[in-house]
Amino acid sequence: MKANYHAVIMAGGGGTRLWPLSRKAHPKHMLALLEQQSLFQSTVARLNGMFPPERIWVVTVEEQAHDLQRQAPAIPKENYLPEPAPRGTAAVVGLAAVALRRRNPDAVMAVLPSDHFIRHVDLFHRLLKAAYLVAEEGYLVTLGITPTYPATGYGYIQRGESIGVFADLRAYRVARFKEKPDQENARKMLAAGGHSWNSGMFVWRADVILAEIRRQMPKLAEALDEVDAAWETPHRADVLRRVWPALETQTVDYGVMEGTDKAAVIPAKGLGWSDVGSWEALFDVLPTDDDGNILRGYKHITIDARDSLVYADDNGKGKLIAVLGVDNIVVVDTDDALLVCSREQTQRVREIVKELKSRGWEEYL
Amino acid sequence: MKANYHAVIMAGGGGTRLWPLSRKAHPKHMLALLEQQSLFQSTVARLNGMFPPERIWVVTVEEQAHDLQRQAPAIPKENYLPEPAPRGTAAVVGLAAVALRRRNPDAVMAVLPSDHFIRHVDLFHRLLKAAYLVAEEGYLVTLGITPTYPATGYGYIQRGESIGVFADLRAYRVARFKEKPDQENARKMLAAGGHSWNSGMFVWRADVILAEIRRQMPKLAEALDEVDAAWETPHRADVLRRVWPALETQTVDYGVMEGTDKAAVIPAKGLGWSDVGSWEALFDVLPTDDDGNILRGYKHITIDARDSLVYADDNGKGKLIAVLGVDNIVVVDTDDALLVCSREQTQRVREIVKELKSRGWEEYL
Repeated sequence: MKANYHAVIMAGGGGTRLWPLSRKAHPKHMLALLEQQSLFQSTVARLNGMFPPERIWVVTVEEQAHDLQRQAPAIPKENYLPEPAPRGTAAVVGLAAVALRRRNPDAVMAVLPSDHFIRHVDLFHRLLKAAYLVAEEGYLVTLGITPTYPATGYGYIQRGESIGVFADLRAYRVARFKEKPDQENARKMLAAGGHSWNSGMFVWRADVILAEIRRQMPKLAEALDEVDAAWETPHRADVLRRVWPALETQTVDYGVMEGTDKAAVIPAKGLGWSDVGSWEALFDVLPTDDDGNILRGYKHITIDARDSLVYADDNGKGKLIAVLGVDNIVVVDTDDALLVCSREQTQRVREIVKELKSRGWEEYL
Repeated sequence: MKANYHAVIMAGGGGTRLWPLSRKAHPKHMLALLEQQSLFQSTVARLNGMFPPERIWVVTVEEQAHDLQRQAPAIPKENYLPEPAPRGTAAVVGLAAVALRRRNPDAVMAVLPSDHFIRHVDLFHRLLKAAYLVAEEGYLVTLGITPTYPATGYGYIQRGESIGVFADLRAYRVARFKEKPDQENARKMLAAGGHSWNSGMFVWRADVILAEIRRQMPKLAEALDEVDAAWETPHRADVLRRVWPALETQTVDYGVMEGTDKAAVIPAKGLGWSDVGSWEALFDVLPTDDDGNILRGYKHITIDARDSLVYADDNGKGKLIAVLGVDNIVVVDTDDALLVCSREQTQRVREIVKELKSRGWEEYL
């Protein structure tokens, strides 16, 4: 990969949808949910052989910076960019673009969520290579996931005309971004074809995205100018702490992508992607036993149990799981909280988190 | 109650059907499952006002004797009769009868399981009074529970001719004991009427039951003779340890009641009895919330949850329970084991215990 190619990992989120395992102090991307390593560590490992560590950046929140550095010590400390407070992915992208442009005015940056799963890393590398080539021509490139069902939880991207073939992969202009649709519209788009899910993975030139931010999000651009001016001074952190909390929280999807004419998409068919966005999503990612179960504990016994997830975070306590005569159940057990949920409703776990907040039961968040 | 009336509590069982809460070291009758006190303590408390502590006896196994004494310190130490090994209720009854006959040759004894629930204690007292009167006439009296559904897990007692009215309650000869029937026969007996469930609560004279044991179970009678002969010597415990392990394990129901012509039954209609013989049984005993749930934990949140039992034995750890979109589920969480089970199948929990044994996972028993 060229010396002006960088990768930016967004690692500041909370991931409440995997409560009670994901918590404020142990957000989703820090969990070793799928492998021996955390989702964040897998995201870093996935860049092996593409980027040297000094061209991998991590935007996070101050509370998480230290733990993340311990999880990925090869990345230079100065490449960890802590936000004083999370203000959405638009601010994340802007902050990283400022940092990269200072390192290299021609920087091209991939923006990657830290908490996704990708099965086929080879294809991921090919996609990134193609995306960098498209981005160099001034496009804001997004990797589009091939829809497998009429999901209502993802944004959709409608393909427009072909831009050409890059590293054997075809790229398209984006005809339209469509935010999370209702069931009816999701079904229509799936039937019509020519749509991808928005993966949240982007590639663009730092100067191009900053120009788009200036055009569409002038207040964010002003804040970034202040931060940029203080970058090489001892006041950078102070300036960040002053200007950041005043920013409006906004995603780069709403704030930039929907209003640009430079958007492009490369369909990522067969990537084996998951945003691990609910307990249900683990069934797409983790192997199941012959009865369709995912069982995590020290030992387990099942009798007539099917298509269920039982996850005991046993902290080495040697917890036994016994499952009898149930199907389509999700049970997640931690030291201080126990979730019992039907598989069909795991996306509603966020309602529990909301309820915890409204009751002031902070210790379980 | 007369001075020759005694009560014997059988407290040696394991109660595997409430696994993982009930364990070898914490058998069912020692659990504070329904109230602040254990089932054993409730059984003792239920005798308040009927018997002074010195006429309450506890037959148990050696491993449990110490803990039970701590739970019911008012009962004199010499009234705890430890078996070297459990050999079924016939041996329990024989041992207690030997002890009581030595205290009082005219002793009449109630034999009471330590792990049952009884809602209406006043009626229980009236039933006991009547049963003692019937027993004084030489009958082996059992309290018969009015069946509410065609249970296959209980023995059935068919009423014969009336013996008369005792303390306002009518007693009957037993026409037949029928061991745990199949669904078809259970339905027939329920439809026919005139049947009770065998509660496992008996009242009889010590001399009468010992004579029946001698007639029907001569080997047990021989062993009891040896124990009796050594009773007032320093060798009693040694003799017990020698003769007890050689005994055949047998219930008093099979060993004595089915083969006697002295059996009587007093129907205990409206007693509010439960043998708490499965997690499902707790729904008959414990109050449920408006959605039919029983939730035990430090705090809980439910969303669209119905008719489920979630029990976290949190040991003061402040465990939160969250239940979302499920019904008819039983989840029981302890420090080292987690059970997930459908309500319809809680009677199969013993299969899990069996599996634990066959795999040699003793630490979870």
